[in-house]
Amino acid sequence: MLSEFSLIDRFFARRAAAQPSDTESGALGIGDDCALLAPRPGEMLAISTDMLVEGRHFFADVDPQALGHKALAVNLSDLAAMGARPQAFTLAFSLPKADETWLAAFSAGLFALAERYECALIGGDTTGGPLNLCITVFGSVPPQVALRRDAAQAGDDIWISGALGNARAGLGVQRGEWQADADDAATFRRALERPEPRVALGLALRGIAHAALDLSDGLAGDLLHILERSNLQATVDVDAVPRSAALRRLSPAIQQRCTLAGGDDYELCFTAPASARAAVQNAGREAAVPVTRVGTISALQTAADRPAIGWRDAAGAPLTLTLQGFDHFHAD
Amino acid sequence: MLSEFSLIDRFFARRAAAQPSDTESGALGIGDDCALLAPRPGEMLAISTDMLVEGRHFFADVDPQALGHKALAVNLSDLAAMGARPQAFTLAFSLPKADETWLAAFSAGLFALAERYECALIGGDTTGGPLNLCITVFGSVPPQVALRRDAAQAGDDIWISGALGNARAGLGVQRGEWQADADDAATFRRALERPEPRVALGLALRGIAHAALDLSDGLAGDLLHILERSNLQATVDVDAVPRSAALRRLSPAIQQRCTLAGGDDYELCFTAPASARAAVQNAGREAAVPVTRVGTISALQTAADRPAIGWRDAAGAPLTLTLQGFDHFHAD
Repeated sequence: MLSEFSLIDRFFARRAAAQPSDTESGALGIGDDCALLAPRPGEMLAISTDMLVEGRHFFADVDPQALGHKALAVNLSDLAAMGARPQAFTLAFSLPKADETWLAAFSAGLFALAERYECALIGGDTTGGPLNLCITVFGSVPPQVALRRDAAQAGDDIWISGALGNARAGLGVQRGEWQADADDAATFRRALERPEPRVALGLALRGIAHAALDLSDGLAGDLLHILERSNLQATVDVDAVPRSAALRRLSPAIQQRCTLAGGDDYELCFTAPASARAAVQNAGREAAVPVTRVGTISALQTAADRPAIGWRDAAGAPLTLTLQGFDHFHAD
Repeated sequence: MLSEFSLIDRFFARRAAAQPSDTESGALGIGDDCALLAPRPGEMLAISTDMLVEGRHFFADVDPQALGHKALAVNLSDLAAMGARPQAFTLAFSLPKADETWLAAFSAGLFALAERYECALIGGDTTGGPLNLCITVFGSVPPQVALRRDAAQAGDDIWISGALGNARAGLGVQRGEWQADADDAATFRRALERPEPRVALGLALRGIAHAALDLSDGLAGDLLHILERSNLQATVDVDAVPRSAALRRLSPAIQQRCTLAGGDDYELCFTAPASARAAVQNAGREAAVPVTRVGTISALQTAADRPAIGWRDAAGAPLTLTLQGFDHFHAD
């Protein structure tokens, strides 16, 4: 297995060693039993872990460079949703064989994103086995401004970054569920394979937003997490949910399915007081990401009420939607 | 997959929520996009990640309770080798189906060890797929006393905790490579399935030992990591390497193979100045783990010298050993 080892060393350890060392946090990286890491002074480490499995989170024939990007992007997205500044990550993976071309492309996609966010590879583990990627990511955040799920308040606006549904539309085109022209198909595919973590927006929303999370499983399911943790309910204007021009060219039914129950978008969904509307718009401009107000948070009305989302059309009339949860690529 | 979700919630999330919250580090655990964690004041987080794959690191029919223990134990062992105090861990795993009996036993083994070391589960990810366990563990250590691999010094003694070779002997018995009576076989099997991380010893060696690592791949390969990182060489008395009474009942050739090239022992190998011999023995007593001096570290003699281990017999005569690296269960 020596050849595997030296390949992995070539593609990961040496590149990790070439990273600028973070003198502020004094990180000790790859090559010891543990890496050493500290948050910035007065801050805490925000930590998230995600495992990606072939056949479940990506197809066996996925472009390895896109996979390297996405494996880290979905983790950085969790930092963004916490308002944390990326700092470092560990990478553990099993793979059936050490394919040099594959590893070169995968590591290129991974490090291109890591370097863009100054997020250093500080440790890892590699082994033979069915293809499986496990990344744990570390960011730094002052705990008092961390964007927690349990911090929404009655009266808050509900906001969404970017546009929803493109990733699910891309999966539908790939699966042959529906068709799109070549340009739109490319837009959708890019959203599915190359999600952009909203790190800058998460940082800009510190002290402005109350609660936040990233949309990995679809708005209907994910917003419910905020409601359950904050013990509140929500009203969402279905037609206000932002979508791309490409998605608007698909049928209204597909648009609704992709925007509300899609998933894999990795946009932020967050709440903020109505008094902060200008500040939220300003944060969006600062981060160069559009932000759209789609609804409001309210208190539960009776002791029997459960956290839930009330869907409305543009005229404010209630809609009864049958939304299949987790209607996207990873069925878990 | 709702049933899987509630099973996982029952066995992991609820139990994690019941853990005493660490007010000192102010950890925010499962249920948000990220966990929040801080090292103790003035310290850094020591971080290590390990991935265990079925068929490579454990057999498909492994006792799930033992697997839960071992998956965390090998990670805690990395903290021990750094002199770090365990604090928290994340668990990501894929499994083919949500088998309630299996999950109950696995989580029982995992949490029994976690609670013993006050190491809280703070996050995770679960998905369908071939059985794969990825744990990332966090400890706290003052960086100036962290037991790094690159800190050995010429003149240091080389020490080993506990006894080596039992785990490899257990694998040999399981594979039918050699026989042992029932009691010895049980001793070997326990070493293979239930390694005890030397956390207390790692803590007791802060400020006493220079360099340390844990023996996961066998003494011959692992000690070389210290030598390479410290740019030194070593002389090891083969007969001084500690072994159990059970192992002494196997042939001398098997003893040598198991103690020097075995692996999976998760004992500590560390270096300390000769002036610290009493302090090292005292640390061993404090941690209730025997410690044995097996050799010495010396400077490279010429510019052409490479870090290497010189093996000696009890009389000090050089031995030429053909040690197969990684001669244990996980071939990587």
